[in-house]
Amino acid sequence: MKREDFVVSTLGKATLPSPVVGQAFVSDGETVCYETDAERLAQYIRNNEEIPAFERAGAREKIFHDPAWSRAAILTAGGLCPGLNEVIKFLTQTLINDYKVPVVYGIPYGYRGLNPARKLSPVTLTMEMVDAIHEEGGTILGSSRGQEDTGIIVDTLMRMNINMLFCIGGDGTARCAHDIALEIKRRKLAISVICVPKTVDNDLNFIDQTFGFATAVLQAGPYITCAHSEAKGAYNGVGLVKVMGRDSGFIAAYTALSNPFVNYCLIPEVPFTLEGEGTKSLLPHLVERLKAKHHAVILVAEGAGQELFNSSEERRDASGNKLHNDIGTFLKGEINRYCKEQGIEVNVKYFDPGYAIRSVKAVGSDAVFCAMLAAGAVHAAMAGRTDVMIGHWAGQFTHVPIALATSSRKKIELDSTLWSNVQAMTCYKQQKPQK
Amino acid sequence: MKREDFVVSTLGKATLPSPVVGQAFVSDGETVCYETDAERLAQYIRNNEEIPAFERAGAREKIFHDPAWSRAAILTAGGLCPGLNEVIKFLTQTLINDYKVPVVYGIPYGYRGLNPARKLSPVTLTMEMVDAIHEEGGTILGSSRGQEDTGIIVDTLMRMNINMLFCIGGDGTARCAHDIALEIKRRKLAISVICVPKTVDNDLNFIDQTFGFATAVLQAGPYITCAHSEAKGAYNGVGLVKVMGRDSGFIAAYTALSNPFVNYCLIPEVPFTLEGEGTKSLLPHLVERLKAKHHAVILVAEGAGQELFNSSEERRDASGNKLHNDIGTFLKGEINRYCKEQGIEVNVKYFDPGYAIRSVKAVGSDAVFCAMLAAGAVHAAMAGRTDVMIGHWAGQFTHVPIALATSSRKKIELDSTLWSNVQAMTCYKQQKPQK
Amino acid sequence: MKREDFVVSTLGKATLPSPVVGQAFVSDGETVCYETDAERLAQYIRNNEEIPAFERAGAREKIFHDPAWSRAAILTAGGLCPGLNEVIKFLTQTLINDYKVPVVYGIPYGYRGLNPARKLSPVTLTMEMVDAIHEEGGTILGSSRGQEDTGIIVDTLMRMNINMLFCIGGDGTARCAHDIALEIKRRKLAISVICVPKTVDNDLNFIDQTFGFATAVLQAGPYITCAHSEAKGAYNGVGLVKVMGRDSGFIAAYTALSNPFVNYCLIPEVPFTLEGEGTKSLLPHLVERLKAKHHAVILVAEGAGQELFNSSEERRDASGNKLHNDIGTFLKGEINRYCKEQGIEVNVKYFDPGYAIRSVKAVGSDAVFCAMLAAGAVHAAMAGRTDVMIGHWAGQFTHVPIALATSSRKKIELDSTLWSNVQAMTCYKQQKPQK
Amino acid sequence: MKREDFVVSTLGKATLPSPVVGQAFVSDGETVCYETDAERLAQYIRNNEEIPAFERAGAREKIFHDPAWSRAAILTAGGLCPGLNEVIKFLTQTLINDYKVPVVYGIPYGYRGLNPARKLSPVTLTMEMVDAIHEEGGTILGSSRGQEDTGIIVDTLMRMNINMLFCIGGDGTARCAHDIALEIKRRKLAISVICVPKTVDNDLNFIDQTFGFATAVLQAGPYITCAHSEAKGAYNGVGLVKVMGRDSGFIAAYTALSNPFVNYCLIPEVPFTLEGEGTKSLLPHLVERLKAKHHAVILVAEGAGQELFNSSEERRDASGNKLHNDIGTFLKGEINRYCKEQGIEVNVKYFDPGYAIRSVKAVGSDAVFCAMLAAGAVHAAMAGRTDVMIGHWAGQFTHVPIALATSSRKKIELDSTLWSNVQAMTCYKQQKPQK
Repeated sequence: MKREDFVVSTLGKATLPSPVVGQAFVSDGETVCYETDAERLAQYIRNNEEIPAFERAGAREKIFHDPAWSRAAILTAGGLCPGLNEVIKFLTQTLINDYKVPVVYGIPYGYRGLNPARKLSPVTLTMEMVDAIHEEGGTILGSSRGQEDTGIIVDTLMRMNINMLFCIGGDGTARCAHDIALEIKRRKLAISVICVPKTVDNDLNFIDQTFGFATAVLQAGPYITCAHSEAKGAYNGVGLVKVMGRDSGFIAAYTALSNPFVNYCLIPEVPFTLEGEGTKSLLPHLVERLKAKHHAVILVAEGAGQELFNSSEERRDASGNKLHNDIGTFLKGEINRYCKEQGIEVNVKYFDPGYAIRSVKAVGSDAVFCAMLAAGAVHAAMAGRTDVMIGHWAGQFTHVPIALATSSRKKIELDSTLWSNVQAMTCYKQQKPQK
Repeated sequence: MKREDFVVSTLGKATLPSPVVGQAFVSDGETVCYETDAERLAQYIRNNEEIPAFERAGAREKIFHDPAWSRAAILTAGGLCPGLNEVIKFLTQTLINDYKVPVVYGIPYGYRGLNPARKLSPVTLTMEMVDAIHEEGGTILGSSRGQEDTGIIVDTLMRMNINMLFCIGGDGTARCAHDIALEIKRRKLAISVICVPKTVDNDLNFIDQTFGFATAVLQAGPYITCAHSEAKGAYNGVGLVKVMGRDSGFIAAYTALSNPFVNYCLIPEVPFTLEGEGTKSLLPHLVERLKAKHHAVILVAEGAGQELFNSSEERRDASGNKLHNDIGTFLKGEINRYCKEQGIEVNVKYFDPGYAIRSVKAVGSDAVFCAMLAAGAVHAAMAGRTDVMIGHWAGQFTHVPIALATSSRKKIELDSTLWSNVQAMTCYKQQKPQK
Repeated sequence: MKREDFVVSTLGKATLPSPVVGQAFVSDGETVCYETDAERLAQYIRNNEEIPAFERAGAREKIFHDPAWSRAAILTAGGLCPGLNEVIKFLTQTLINDYKVPVVYGIPYGYRGLNPARKLSPVTLTMEMVDAIHEEGGTILGSSRGQEDTGIIVDTLMRMNINMLFCIGGDGTARCAHDIALEIKRRKLAISVICVPKTVDNDLNFIDQTFGFATAVLQAGPYITCAHSEAKGAYNGVGLVKVMGRDSGFIAAYTALSNPFVNYCLIPEVPFTLEGEGTKSLLPHLVERLKAKHHAVILVAEGAGQELFNSSEERRDASGNKLHNDIGTFLKGEINRYCKEQGIEVNVKYFDPGYAIRSVKAVGSDAVFCAMLAAGAVHAAMAGRTDVMIGHWAGQFTHVPIALATSSRKKIELDSTLWSNVQAMTCYKQQKPQK
Repeated sequence: MKREDFVVSTLGKATLPSPVVGQAFVSDGETVCYETDAERLAQYIRNNEEIPAFERAGAREKIFHDPAWSRAAILTAGGLCPGLNEVIKFLTQTLINDYKVPVVYGIPYGYRGLNPARKLSPVTLTMEMVDAIHEEGGTILGSSRGQEDTGIIVDTLMRMNINMLFCIGGDGTARCAHDIALEIKRRKLAISVICVPKTVDNDLNFIDQTFGFATAVLQAGPYITCAHSEAKGAYNGVGLVKVMGRDSGFIAAYTALSNPFVNYCLIPEVPFTLEGEGTKSLLPHLVERLKAKHHAVILVAEGAGQELFNSSEERRDASGNKLHNDIGTFLKGEINRYCKEQGIEVNVKYFDPGYAIRSVKAVGSDAVFCAMLAAGAVHAAMAGRTDVMIGHWAGQFTHVPIALATSSRKKIELDSTLWSNVQAMTCYKQQKPQK
């Protein structure tokens, strides 16, 4: 990690006084260190290196864009996630109430709404319109997957006189936003492009948690109780629950710790075998448990066990995400098959709560998080930042260059406190992958 | 309907004073009319016919079984249903607290627990053990599907000196209970067999509502909101939700009315076509709606549209219930296929909340209903009733002969207020089947 | 009870064909008997008396009001209740979609909105406006207590050309509606006045359950669990919960049965003493329990124990409801005082969930009930019924003359199954009042 | 801040190999910096000062206590808080499963259970006993306020051969634990005293969030929606909600941001006046809002506005917490009084959800947090740490000397992002107190 990877792009010098009143300002030099260990930090100084650190987010005393001349646009892209409407509400509110920005557009159906060929009309967002939207799941703007031509999008921004574009979306959305920001730079335009990172899987690097993740974990918890009831309610009952997590098992790991009825927690980061290694393999281990306890709860992330499929071809969705084979249905079948072969009765009840977990509103601290991310995004835009994502690190809100944030996916570290605790509470100690 | 179909079996004359204190007693002659229309009731009298009516349930002043010599057994059979533990709790409590019955057995895993070959041990239920079980879904006794030999079961009841057997279960469970009652009669034993009817589908005739149904409807409601959010969140989004309902669409119909975001409500009682009849068919109708509104919510009962499958063979589960083809997955595929053929973009999000709806505890009035059914069951048993199910009709608790209750399934009447209201609020007016 | 008390007023002969399609019609002669016991019903016929019975609600083949010329108005009065918006939605929907009524007004803040002096403007309700209101608690129309001049209200109805007035409210609202209907009759106008009965206390006679009640019970349940946790979490902990129920203890009784952690259930129907009768009195009984179990949960209806106050004066709210002394705070103080006197440590935790229980949306079967009541109300109005309340009895929707419905309050019968079951499960057997 | 304030006490050198398998170990030198700004951290090094930093929590490769000879004790003290049982479960599980500690005592009713004069018997906690307790609110051990004699407590620990005491509690509990640790040191005993900090108010310094807080915020959110419904449902309706927060307004501030229907957020950190400063004062400001919008939602922390009372005497509870005057009831009265004086109709609906917010189980990420804190506490104890609290800072679990943690209360900083955002979204901009 180098300090320069953390440097955020700016459209120009911020010289206008901020109209924001009654709030504290963040100075431009304030940072949030990437690392937290005192000794490692001291090393940088002793080595005459700059400490790698994020720029701190927040309202600035001087701003770049003149609010009176500003026209903002907000879009949501990718799959649903709890909190989208809360983010839209607070973006709108901060723009209109705090900065007195006269025009805030809501772009329908993601980037698609910026392509005139799609014949979709933007809506003008007002305080009245967003008043109660935090009570609804989903996104009032609609969303879509897939890319539109970057040049056409920038043409549209120019034609609409938009000088701030807020893109709420995941990895794919952020990459598009980066391309748009580069094109804007190439054309020497003064348009800020700010991402509010949305990934219910919580798999963005350099961002300790993404909005919606906590609500998704909250929603997933009761399914474990249900699976446990179904498992105990039948002889040799197995409650099998699949949760989201394409490449990272955060939802699965958090759900397991939040509702410790889980006996098996299978995540993409740790491969496992079905048979062939005795009770190191899943199915013989499960049969041993059923013989002893007559019930089990298995929690599996959608991206786990992909190595068990003989897939010659790789499929991707419109956002470029790898399409997974359905590990849930597959495991249900394999458990039934194996138990039948072993002459063991088994009763598998399968839960696939996927969409139900992500299409609700954000609640509690997660909704607070949405509000603060949104406010931070507006402050960043007004201060002239661009090509930047609002992040959170070590208890502070941060500016993360989009290129840094999308450089790799965050995964569960197998020697982390998180995974150690999951291993401690579940009965199946998966083998760590050989590196 | 004849009055004689409503006559309940009794083991013998109830001569012992009831130990129940501080409660009101029901007289043996009290009834609950099957019909409620004044003119139709008057007809019976004018025709010198007896009015068809249920015996009213409740505590009797005189009882048949001597509590001091009584040994009760409770079992749960079939799939999970909200309220099982509440029923177990109140059966136990009424037996122990009100009647001072010294021994109450919990039989593990349904009828299976009464077959010694299964090597399952009964538990002795105490007030302390059942104190907090109403807070858990599932059944603390475990359940199972499938039949055991009636003779062996009666042998076990005799050997264990059980004189009251409470069977909590559905259609299949009730039929077994009826067989057991007949065998008990053949052997001239004084054992009461009482059913507490459990069918989350609410499809028992002569019983206006079954416990757990209301909680299941309550649980299903939020999925409609989620499906609506997913549908509106994508261009031409379709939220497709499958709920339980093998032969009867009550859960679907109630869920639709409880959360009127539903646009299509498909139930087993009303066949439909996919294509071929213009917008009388589902798929062309859906495409028209998508063109106009760009989103739709479809709610389908698991037993709906079975006529669309070319199934030569009929499969049944261990309880004898017909196994259905998966209408949810099928519809999802058909919608995608048809829209692709029509060149219409569509985004189907499929929800299958099945087990999550039924494995929770009963709440609110539904839990009250469980408590009252259970108390009624104990009163019936103590009064010497047998081969009887506790029902509810016209606002009263009733005794329903098991043979009557299992004579046919309850279905949604297509000219009922219920279905009229569902039709009024949804956009797809299904054709009534030709009789 | 005489049959004539059940006769419903009609504006005139219904001669127009109903535009409602695809629904079943109810014939005018269909009834729902007030009583359900076969023998008692037979007696009427043998005595040549008409059986007391309600007119059945539902869509009629012939209607009185010409939809094309109709202008409906909807108002909500009195305190909030779950389901108000669901009722407003289904009234609007049935009027607009089924009958094609061109104008539906929402009257702001109850009867107040019909008094021009109040300077409140009606809103015109559309399908779009009511689309998602079932997801919100409260009432989009606003409500108010208190009366307005009947003559002025009828003047307003005339001036606005309203021929159907739907009043959603309780006892007080219904009495006003009755006065309005009488004034309309006096003026020989053709305006239907229909009440949808709203009383979260469920205390309306001749109506087996009112909407919102089931949701309120559902909401109250978790407070009992909380009170139980607080009670067990402290030495000699007492969880004291007050719920609504001015004159009738239905919410308390249902809540107790739905969450049987309740040890004491105090309702208005059964007076009790604090001291002076040994453990027949509440406080000594409680102390005995604390000594034995070290915790207790007390559920008290707001109208319970009013006889314990020395109130010379009676206070009433704007709706004419008697204002109660706060039994919750009073009991908390008395328990603390008595235990201190007795030298017993006690830790009372007091819960007063009142408004939180009633200001939520209706859910599950309760929402279904709202939908059906609303549809029934519109069908009644269109058929020319007036001065009528939509009720529910013995599993059917009914027409109840307002005068009958408001003739007396429904209370818990102390020899009912309901109260017997509450007595059986709680430890404090209250004395029945001497009559 | 000096590095030495962060140094944690240790009973002695950890020389035994840890029996923990399959988990990652933390090295003793690992730290978590108190500050996060790169420049400020660099200053320390340039000034040759040690960077103030916490010791990182986690499993150590070498431990101090021999598990085979260990006997642990767990107690809960102070008021209820979501997550107590989850902490108890994971303490027990980590002790028994990971370290094979043979005896784990549950001490009843806090420190009281360690005073033999109280005649309370400890329970022996087993894995089976704690299996499902995470599903219950409250604490299975019971809790109490108030102090017991430190010497007697240490006598008891010695007599019971306890070498690890886990105290789950707040400020008061931590101070007692500190006294116990000092007495243990004085007696030269090898007993670890570890605190798991419990304060639903989230007001502990040097700890970024305490367990239960997030669940409390989650629980509080729906009351705002209810208050909003009540406020909009009546003419000039005011929904007034009081939440916990004796000295710090965190619950209020988070609740306001999580459910932005709040218009006024009153916290202990910001004094306010009722009248006398025009619309800088609360009541005139409220009246202006009612005139404009006809409804308002006020959220008040229990410790807010204490300066408005003329209290000559200060009262404290058994834990030494200052007893507050009831600001909720007071405000309700003052609003009614003022509006009456001003001739403005007002309808105040008051919500006091206090106990209902804190007596539930912890859910979602908050439950995960409980699990990790508990595991960290056991690792700290086994490694020989004492007089220490498990904390969380900058995304890491930490060891915090109890003396440091209890040195002052955490309050909302008025120039923080949190309070800035609350100010931005509410209509009443409170004056910052003059320092």
